[in-house]
Amino acid sequence: MGGSRTNISTGPAGRPWRFDLALDGGASVPRQTQLSRAIIQEIRRGRLLPGATLPGSRTLAAQLKVNRKVVVAAVGELVAQGWLEALPARGTRVALNLPTLAVADAEGRRSVGAAPAQRRAAVIAVSDGVPDARIAPVDQLARAQRRALRALTRTGLGYGDAAGDPVLRDVLAGFVNHARGLSCSSEEVVLTRGSQGALSLFALAMLEPGEVVAVEHPGYAPAWRAFRLARAEVVHVPVDAEGLRTDELEAHAKRLKGRLKAVYVTPHHQYPTTVAMSAERRMHLRRICETYRLYIVEDDYDYEYHFEGAPLLPLSATKDLSSRCVYIASLSKLIAPALRLGYIIADRSVVARLSSVRELLDRQGDVVLERAVAELIEDGEVQRHARRARQLYRERRDHLLEQLASRPPLCAALACDPPGGGLALWLRLRGVTSEELARRAHARDVTLTPGSAHVADGSLPAFRFGFAAHTTEELSAICDTLEACLKPDAGAKRR
Amino acid sequence: MGGSRTNISTGPAGRPWRFDLALDGGASVPRQTQLSRAIIQEIRRGRLLPGATLPGSRTLAAQLKVNRKVVVAAVGELVAQGWLEALPARGTRVALNLPTLAVADAEGRRSVGAAPAQRRAAVIAVSDGVPDARIAPVDQLARAQRRALRALTRTGLGYGDAAGDPVLRDVLAGFVNHARGLSCSSEEVVLTRGSQGALSLFALAMLEPGEVVAVEHPGYAPAWRAFRLARAEVVHVPVDAEGLRTDELEAHAKRLKGRLKAVYVTPHHQYPTTVAMSAERRMHLRRICETYRLYIVEDDYDYEYHFEGAPLLPLSATKDLSSRCVYIASLSKLIAPALRLGYIIADRSVVARLSSVRELLDRQGDVVLERAVAELIEDGEVQRHARRARQLYRERRDHLLEQLASRPPLCAALACDPPGGGLALWLRLRGVTSEELARRAHARDVTLTPGSAHVADGSLPAFRFGFAAHTTEELSAICDTLEACLKPDAGAKRR
Repeated sequence: MGGSRTNISTGPAGRPWRFDLALDGGASVPRQTQLSRAIIQEIRRGRLLPGATLPGSRTLAAQLKVNRKVVVAAVGELVAQGWLEALPARGTRVALNLPTLAVADAEGRRSVGAAPAQRRAAVIAVSDGVPDARIAPVDQLARAQRRALRALTRTGLGYGDAAGDPVLRDVLAGFVNHARGLSCSSEEVVLTRGSQGALSLFALAMLEPGEVVAVEHPGYAPAWRAFRLARAEVVHVPVDAEGLRTDELEAHAKRLKGRLKAVYVTPHHQYPTTVAMSAERRMHLRRICETYRLYIVEDDYDYEYHFEGAPLLPLSATKDLSSRCVYIASLSKLIAPALRLGYIIADRSVVARLSSVRELLDRQGDVVLERAVAELIEDGEVQRHARRARQLYRERRDHLLEQLASRPPLCAALACDPPGGGLALWLRLRGVTSEELARRAHARDVTLTPGSAHVADGSLPAFRFGFAAHTTEELSAICDTLEACLKPDAGAKRR
Repeated sequence: MGGSRTNISTGPAGRPWRFDLALDGGASVPRQTQLSRAIIQEIRRGRLLPGATLPGSRTLAAQLKVNRKVVVAAVGELVAQGWLEALPARGTRVALNLPTLAVADAEGRRSVGAAPAQRRAAVIAVSDGVPDARIAPVDQLARAQRRALRALTRTGLGYGDAAGDPVLRDVLAGFVNHARGLSCSSEEVVLTRGSQGALSLFALAMLEPGEVVAVEHPGYAPAWRAFRLARAEVVHVPVDAEGLRTDELEAHAKRLKGRLKAVYVTPHHQYPTTVAMSAERRMHLRRICETYRLYIVEDDYDYEYHFEGAPLLPLSATKDLSSRCVYIASLSKLIAPALRLGYIIADRSVVARLSSVRELLDRQGDVVLERAVAELIEDGEVQRHARRARQLYRERRDHLLEQLASRPPLCAALACDPPGGGLALWLRLRGVTSEELARRAHARDVTLTPGSAHVADGSLPAFRFGFAAHTTEELSAICDTLEACLKPDAGAKRR
């Protein structure tokens, strides 16, 4: 099948550039994918330079003799991935800051822009559910940071409020009251260094040595370690398809009497199992916390990423409980993991204790980053990014679910209850341990975290498959590897 | 006396602007000060706009009929204060980002650009020794941050090393080895959130509940609180004109046996007294730490600001002790307090423990800021800024010392041993408590921190006068206030 071929004159600052493009109508790869790969290839080769304007979709479709929808879809995916930028009323151009695949080569060095075909020696790291920083509004953030730095220099860049920049606290109060049914004022908000910073701050400020925190099991082990940093103890409460087993929590509360001080939950998309806590359990949890005077530490780490229906309101949205609710959320999941910016919403007396400990820990947060993010929220930039990211991640999730369902070896070995949201699937394994799978995958240059990372001890035949940071191409490549790992003779193959 | 008057046509982008300037040769205020005040006035009134180019010093001197030195000195001070910018080979222009006085009005709101004459309702806060952020290389930092953000986005902006950006760790190792006689590798550097972040990290990682840290007294109380955050205890060791009383330290070490784990010292410019630890005490301290296996936590918080002779080498520069030395330094004092960036240099085993606790506290630092600062150090920008700042702060210190010496009421009430460096004077009071002086000053819109802030309990008839963040004008104004506060009837006047 011949395919069509076209020449496009395009380049930065009007410099002409020849761009050869051949789409094969009869190939097994859909033409949309062929087109997007070809454009990426041209960018990587340096033949399409950053800033170059692409022809309109109609022109391109006519020249390539494909349906315009194919072009629109391919361009849309590349915009979402950050290869292209859509300029209002001015068409589409090659992004000024190009993304790369989040891959490291065998020596652990980051390789820039390695194409899938060249990726033989590269390792793909399957995360436990991080966002794709390649689509983050980095330019907007950089500009906002610059403005914030200048504005704050005028006031001396001195020491500020340990609870964080008052402007961002105010903006966040409005943000969550509007979207999440909370009703808090800026005095009830403390900025933290991501959710980990929120957890360690809560632990150091609110827990005495020997006091106990009940946690979900399997659960988020870095939270357990943060509680133990304050010399508190941790009791593990099982999780089932409805979330935390509240009957077990109540038994612990009775047994421990006054020593149980708090319960740590991820009710929206439980970590790591992704289940949502049922309404019945939520009510029971509230009653228990009231009876035994427990803090509910609610970690709503990926609230924004709910794909089916409306997100569930946080437990902390219940007014009458508010004085014992410690609501934790993060902007790191929304923008990029490296931006350590989260927040706690809690009663004023709790906020006062958190602030005084924060002052001892590091005095205050990054006021420049805080002020810049406040601007991005006020301008609606964060919300627009969240919408774009939600759509892209939903497509990636659907693509992954489709891949898992359509490949018999994966169907046979992996079970998954598609979650209502979040950035990862929880895949239960049949016939192979997660450690064994991780070993086999590692031999094929794919790393993943076995289920044992989420339990107090021993193993767990399941693992989290974070899909958000991978393109559909990468997800397919990972599925190829998993398929190879799950073939009957895979354990014997290589190493 | 008539004075001279001149018209200067100047404005941004070539726009002409009339600039009336009258210098009074017979006035009590020196002409240099008159000129700098007049230029600031013009800028504040918006008649000289940001970006406007000033005539050369010869032209200006001729027009104003003053010695060119007067113009050069006035312009130099305004460049240092950030009102003007010197452009290589292109003269001097009004700064694009104008500084303001670090003042808040009576309601605590920051006022932008309040002129001294309008400052009646404004409060001047005398700090304990912060740098002047108005002279910080903010534009360079903003640009470097933007570049770092873009570069790091390419690698996914994911989770990184809890010990901090490897690039900055490497650059800092070179920086301190070159300048401070240390010999460390990047694996012995941990980045922290300022010195407070270093102190809390050391405490949480290295101290067990009930263990004891010996600290200087008077001393840096936020450090004591950081140690107590880890449930450690603090014993106070007196400080005299040679620094920490090591004989008293040894007595504590004997009494506490194995419970004493560390000694926290600020040997370069002791906080708050500014004394340098004598060579004899340093040697004794080293012997004690070896005998009793104590960590020396050496907080070298303002190493860069030494004015008399060469800075003293850190205790940690002694090779044989290195495994028990924990050297803490900060870039916040070098750039601006709001930039929480410091570092610890310690043995690899200590670094490993610090990193694992850092991961629980907030996972990692601000990698974008870290990478940006690495670039500023590599480019020599930080070093150039340090040189400029050192010169300016020395002038401000000398001005303050001169003011204190030339006013009889200040001479009578305040005693000071001029320190070899640092950003503050330690003023001992005669005939009035520091609390009473603080009260009187507050009634006159100047705030200062009484000596009680630096002792375990009770009062101390002394206070720290941070001079670096104030212009010579502001320092004179503060001295006016102190003079009024120290007059015989000052206690009865106002409130």
